[in-house]
Amino acid sequence: MIATIRLDWGTTNARAWACAADGRVLDRRHAALGIRNIGTGGFRAAFDRLVGDWLASGAPVVMSGMVGSRQGWMEAPYAGCPAGLASLAQAMVRLPEPETVLIVPGVGRGGPGERHDVMRGEEVQCFGALAQEGIEDALVCLPGTHSKWVSMRGGAIVDFASAMTGEVFEVMSRHSILGALMREPAPGHGPGQAGGAAFRRGLDRSGEAGGLLNHLFSARAEALFGEIAPEDVRDYLSGVLIGHEIREMPQLLGGSGDILVIADGPLPERYRHAFGHLGIPARLLDAETVTVAGLGLVLERANH
Amino acid sequence: MIATIRLDWGTTNARAWACAADGRVLDRRHAALGIRNIGTGGFRAAFDRLVGDWLASGAPVVMSGMVGSRQGWMEAPYAGCPAGLASLAQAMVRLPEPETVLIVPGVGRGGPGERHDVMRGEEVQCFGALAQEGIEDALVCLPGTHSKWVSMRGGAIVDFASAMTGEVFEVMSRHSILGALMREPAPGHGPGQAGGAAFRRGLDRSGEAGGLLNHLFSARAEALFGEIAPEDVRDYLSGVLIGHEIREMPQLLGGSGDILVIADGPLPERYRHAFGHLGIPARLLDAETVTVAGLGLVLERANH
Repeated sequence: MIATIRLDWGTTNARAWACAADGRVLDRRHAALGIRNIGTGGFRAAFDRLVGDWLASGAPVVMSGMVGSRQGWMEAPYAGCPAGLASLAQAMVRLPEPETVLIVPGVGRGGPGERHDVMRGEEVQCFGALAQEGIEDALVCLPGTHSKWVSMRGGAIVDFASAMTGEVFEVMSRHSILGALMREPAPGHGPGQAGGAAFRRGLDRSGEAGGLLNHLFSARAEALFGEIAPEDVRDYLSGVLIGHEIREMPQLLGGSGDILVIADGPLPERYRHAFGHLGIPARLLDAETVTVAGLGLVLERANH
Repeated sequence: MIATIRLDWGTTNARAWACAADGRVLDRRHAALGIRNIGTGGFRAAFDRLVGDWLASGAPVVMSGMVGSRQGWMEAPYAGCPAGLASLAQAMVRLPEPETVLIVPGVGRGGPGERHDVMRGEEVQCFGALAQEGIEDALVCLPGTHSKWVSMRGGAIVDFASAMTGEVFEVMSRHSILGALMREPAPGHGPGQAGGAAFRRGLDRSGEAGGLLNHLFSARAEALFGEIAPEDVRDYLSGVLIGHEIREMPQLLGGSGDILVIADGPLPERYRHAFGHLGIPARLLDAETVTVAGLGLVLERANH
């Protein structure tokens, strides 16, 4: 029996879960129906295609992610920071049709003259992570195109910040002189050698003087001198960038709790190696588990 | 009477000067005949097109820049670091034809396990800058696609490093999500508002916690919240990047002498504002003047 329907609907992908009353996942769907691929007015059709057959249950639906942005189905204005579960639940918006659907707002921070930042979807995962770990304080790291780092205290989001790590990696690999130096790894050499020597070398470089602009150039200089093989330039660059992120973001947020890394795809494995190499304790959590749990928590809170 | 012919022949441009015995410039040429635009074997034709009519003088020719790289006319292997005028002069290579032509080597640094870096052309400008200022110690900043910072002591190059500032700016402007936020400044608003509020705001941000990966994202966050106008995003990004470069490169090289900025085009004006805003004393020198002087010094030293 479907008791709740939960969706994480982002820029490139949509994921949906049909859950039992105890939160158990009964069924799951995954489609490349991200909001970037949906024209205005196409949301209802995409929604029906994804979960239409579940709606007969009459179960309430909760959605998080970019679906609630100005470019999404219906805007759910950012909740302020700090943000607890209660304030997220209160700020949810209800669709006119189907009325069973609630959209969780993202979180925004920063008044005039302050540091600004925004996130949509990650806030829900953070609450799921705390619940899964049974803790109230943590620094949550969500690696990605725009990595998010979220400081949580007393069970609430008290601060957060973004790092452009994934996008800088992609853009520099594809469009800079560094890309021209890269050779794809041969079969067997394997990309995803997250713990490889070139990756570790990049991590070490990230802690030296000179800053990221010098360390990016170092990929070229080291390759010119034959210190890094062409098939290792990508791993070195990845190490430099991830190293900068995980050295600097905790300083910005000043968190002192456990570091929880919310893992999806192969990327978090790199982060696990990076934290290990730098001697920073961090635990990996499964992204699907904490997303489903977090969506359930917000919905539950709204029904109180 | 032409006494010497001097060329700075780089990746995208070639510049040439016919000089009198006292170093005065009698004539100058500038062409988009950078080595990137010249096929193998095309160097002699390009050379003749540029300075052919000066060769009847029989004057010695000295060239610096990428023309001496493996992709250039003839390779002049990197001189080691530290490098004085004498070692550069000794390491020059002579073309088989025309035999009057000498190519200045670039400078390379770093043995196994050390930090590697290379430059070609900038080393000559650095010697010209010292001579013009009448000093022997300085930290020379040469802004560009790959900015070079050169530490000079006792009249020699003792260390140097590169920062990918210009290329990161171009690549992120054209290919990242930040580019989509940018609107070209209206006429009158003016790009090149090097001292503008958005540029200064970017400079200030570069000194805060979070590191460059967070500061790059901040361009998006500040624009989303209307703190930076779309036509100011480029200036803000420029401030963030130049700010990181000039805060971090001196730390890497540890120089304590005067900072000399070698200026070419509109970019150095931004650096002048940036140094001023951060309260770091720096002097701008004209690129052409120090290049012509530096080429003359190396040639003179070779004739000793």
